[in-house]
Amino acid sequence: MMKKYDKLERNAIGRMVPTIINGREHVPFQGVGKFRPTGRKAAPLIATCADYPDDGNKLVESLREALVKSGLKDGMTISTHHHFRNGDLIANQIFDIAHDLGVRDLRWYPSASFPCHEHLIKYLEDGTINRIEGSMNGPLGKFCSEGNMKGMGVLRSHGGRYQAVQDGDVHIDVAVIAAPTADAFGNANGVDGPAACGLLGFALADSQYADRVIVVTDNLVPFPCIPWQIHGNYVDYTVKVDQVGIPEKIISGTTRITKSPDRLLMAEMTAEFCDQAGIIKDGFSYQAGAGGTALSIGNYFADLMRERGVKARFIRAGSNKYPVQMLEEGLVDYILDGQTFDLEGVRSMRENPGHINTSPFTSYNYHGKGNFSTMVDVVILGATEVDVNFNANVVTHSDGYLLHGMGGWQNCLFSKCTILPIPLFRDRIPVIKDEVTTICGPGELIDVIVTERGIAINPLRKDLIEKLKNTDLPVKTIEELKDEAEKICGVPPKPELDDELVAVIKWVDGTIIDAVRKVKTS
Amino acid sequence: MMKKYDKLERNAIGRMVPTIINGREHVPFQGVGKFRPTGRKAAPLIATCADYPDDGNKLVESLREALVKSGLKDGMTISTHHHFRNGDLIANQIFDIAHDLGVRDLRWYPSASFPCHEHLIKYLEDGTINRIEGSMNGPLGKFCSEGNMKGMGVLRSHGGRYQAVQDGDVHIDVAVIAAPTADAFGNANGVDGPAACGLLGFALADSQYADRVIVVTDNLVPFPCIPWQIHGNYVDYTVKVDQVGIPEKIISGTTRITKSPDRLLMAEMTAEFCDQAGIIKDGFSYQAGAGGTALSIGNYFADLMRERGVKARFIRAGSNKYPVQMLEEGLVDYILDGQTFDLEGVRSMRENPGHINTSPFTSYNYHGKGNFSTMVDVVILGATEVDVNFNANVVTHSDGYLLHGMGGWQNCLFSKCTILPIPLFRDRIPVIKDEVTTICGPGELIDVIVTERGIAINPLRKDLIEKLKNTDLPVKTIEELKDEAEKICGVPPKPELDDELVAVIKWVDGTIIDAVRKVKTS
Repeated sequence: MMKKYDKLERNAIGRMVPTIINGREHVPFQGVGKFRPTGRKAAPLIATCADYPDDGNKLVESLREALVKSGLKDGMTISTHHHFRNGDLIANQIFDIAHDLGVRDLRWYPSASFPCHEHLIKYLEDGTINRIEGSMNGPLGKFCSEGNMKGMGVLRSHGGRYQAVQDGDVHIDVAVIAAPTADAFGNANGVDGPAACGLLGFALADSQYADRVIVVTDNLVPFPCIPWQIHGNYVDYTVKVDQVGIPEKIISGTTRITKSPDRLLMAEMTAEFCDQAGIIKDGFSYQAGAGGTALSIGNYFADLMRERGVKARFIRAGSNKYPVQMLEEGLVDYILDGQTFDLEGVRSMRENPGHINTSPFTSYNYHGKGNFSTMVDVVILGATEVDVNFNANVVTHSDGYLLHGMGGWQNCLFSKCTILPIPLFRDRIPVIKDEVTTICGPGELIDVIVTERGIAINPLRKDLIEKLKNTDLPVKTIEELKDEAEKICGVPPKPELDDELVAVIKWVDGTIIDAVRKVKTS
Repeated sequence: MMKKYDKLERNAIGRMVPTIINGREHVPFQGVGKFRPTGRKAAPLIATCADYPDDGNKLVESLREALVKSGLKDGMTISTHHHFRNGDLIANQIFDIAHDLGVRDLRWYPSASFPCHEHLIKYLEDGTINRIEGSMNGPLGKFCSEGNMKGMGVLRSHGGRYQAVQDGDVHIDVAVIAAPTADAFGNANGVDGPAACGLLGFALADSQYADRVIVVTDNLVPFPCIPWQIHGNYVDYTVKVDQVGIPEKIISGTTRITKSPDRLLMAEMTAEFCDQAGIIKDGFSYQAGAGGTALSIGNYFADLMRERGVKARFIRAGSNKYPVQMLEEGLVDYILDGQTFDLEGVRSMRENPGHINTSPFTSYNYHGKGNFSTMVDVVILGATEVDVNFNANVVTHSDGYLLHGMGGWQNCLFSKCTILPIPLFRDRIPVIKDEVTTICGPGELIDVIVTERGIAINPLRKDLIEKLKNTDLPVKTIEELKDEAEKICGVPPKPELDDELVAVIKWVDGTIIDAVRKVKTS
């Protein structure tokens, strides 16, 4: 049996990481912007129209038939996207079919997995699936953390996932793209249909580079399906099913404005910080995630903008009703959207020409000729832990469990100002530590930590320190914040971890920034 | 010096064609759908954001600086697009700069060249440019026909041009994309700005596969330039100039309804034929070119549709005011547009969400997983000559001069019904011959010839013959039509041609379907 990992090396941020993972060589993290790719992009096989139906009708009877025609066999890589989030109905079916066909040792390469995919644990146990390379939110993360996954988990950011496919680090054998609307040729979009989820950008790389591409829809329209967020010219087979996703479940549980007084305080302080740093001005841009605090910051921004008569050029989103309201109110020219977090986002993307469909290629791919992430003036992100060097963790909890994916988090760190509003402690466990359990983002890219009891500016950002030197905001050092938390809660215990590794965290350039250790479960 | 061509072989349609062209091996035409590509797509170098400015500002001082930074040197391939048609202001400047820099032996790979590029003849003469691979409309075609081009001309269809780049048959070193609107990052579109030309689809392959990509604009907007028909993520440098193109000159001289009684008759007969063949029905689709006859056919279609209460699903275009009127009137759901032929087309593409931006990738690339051309119910095309086997010529005149490019002509032949409305004779020279000067399209794909004196249906199309068996239209054999013309005009003389070859015609799959001989000029 293939070793899960081998040949550990210390990387540029001081972490011991394996350089052989699931039988393949990987490069340890070398520092931000230090690794230089030398090769050429992946080169898909040249197709010919002679092999595809003249009438454009690529419909086959069932997902099973499409998978069989795609040559599904042992050891293949199957990809899916997560635009339906916890409402996905297709990924589980793929592996039910694979199991039924007796296919084994598959690599599942989702753009993220959710609690709805807990169904797949039995296939991870029986060997149908060897491993998941992708975010593991919830039960699958727990399964991996406890050392139960046969292969090694590999976590990539949204941009890193595109990079890995583009660069040929991950070869997708069969991509299955669940689409709210499609034509029989395979043109597809996420804005129309009963299960509309907004867009399909996470499946772009899959469509471009996979050997076989299957589009599954419950809303088949006559050619041409407009808009064609996915081009049928990349698609091999189309399948009509009764239902591809549950649209209500694309809503993230965190897309509601926070009501917690502490979080509202952090939101207000963050907005105030941005204002005093001179960020809120005509033509500025920002990205705020879908968490309650981030949403609340967006509302503070909107208030400031109305007050000043200032207009933003664009909001990078994860959209929901709040940025949509700002777009409709004329507070911003464009929403550059990577995924919709609620049905208002879907509606707006369908109706509003200023609500723009983006993809990890345009927004996040580090192995492109630039991407959009560096052009965002300020980005507000979360973290599970931060260390005194501003390194941050977004995937493991303080007990060591791997329960979150990274999404676009790493990619967003490249903005002009990255702010993490985080509570000083959670469940009486301080969030700022000497050392985070898992490094997902190097401290040099994290500019500001905002807690309910004070703000720490990264000493590297002398410009921000200068701008805030006369502030009435409680600016402190990160050590001061850490001490304050420890005075209240004590020094947090280290998580009980095994030496065995269960997963690795990729940096945006495909190098290994950290490894995740098995949690002791005895 | 490199031989222009070598190793002639007889191809599947009986033509002697070179298999070594400009020093590189090529495959002779093997029959429609017979050539099977075996390799992988071209694999561009992997870039890294570390090499591009964080603020997204890729502006350099001048086109000259951009070309120098792109490493312009002897023997390179420089590509341009022709969306400005005869109003292009950039291509000439590129070669002025190259000449000034003393760079030699360039291959120019335009999507088409026009009379405005006559300026480049001096560079073809002095060795700055070795050859043009692309359509040569007018003076450059004459120059090539007379044997004056150092290298061999290579003509490709729009789809064939995409195929050649995608498959790595043509490696573009530097792509220069003139854009009516762009941001400093390189996102670009053709719908906005003083020189708006509609879209930039002909530059898509160039942006995706060239080593270096330069976007030149006279209308620089703040990031993001929306829509981004070209993604800045592929772009290396951006340049601001005073003017990129003359929008009035994008209008093709042939985009007016014909007033010739013979042509109006052909148009009416064509429309009537389509109607009797059962093509004009709800949800149908068609493509009509920009010629006067084709436009007139569109008008007849519109009349029939109004009369019957029938709605088309889409019009494939080359758009101008006629299909735009139909879209606005609700006679058609979508215009799938590959290039705009007048400013009404530009306006509609900017304003109307049903007026869709396509590219040779979506529409024509034969080495994709299908393309749109096979799904069009009927396509109306022109031809300079047709032979008794329905083979047709669209590039050379009956005197042998190569004066036209192929555009999407070859690609369109794959429609469900291809009709060529052509006059029986031009300047008293019959158009139907025993053998055409140059075969651009194999007869098996050409279904119907409509002349002012009768209609010939390809005997392969037994279904059409059956449908029209009781028609009152003057259906004849193609031999009857040929005899009729010869009775009036006599048998046309053969063009006076040298044995030397000056250019080759590629089929949609990259094989060589015919060669063009030098014209005797003594």
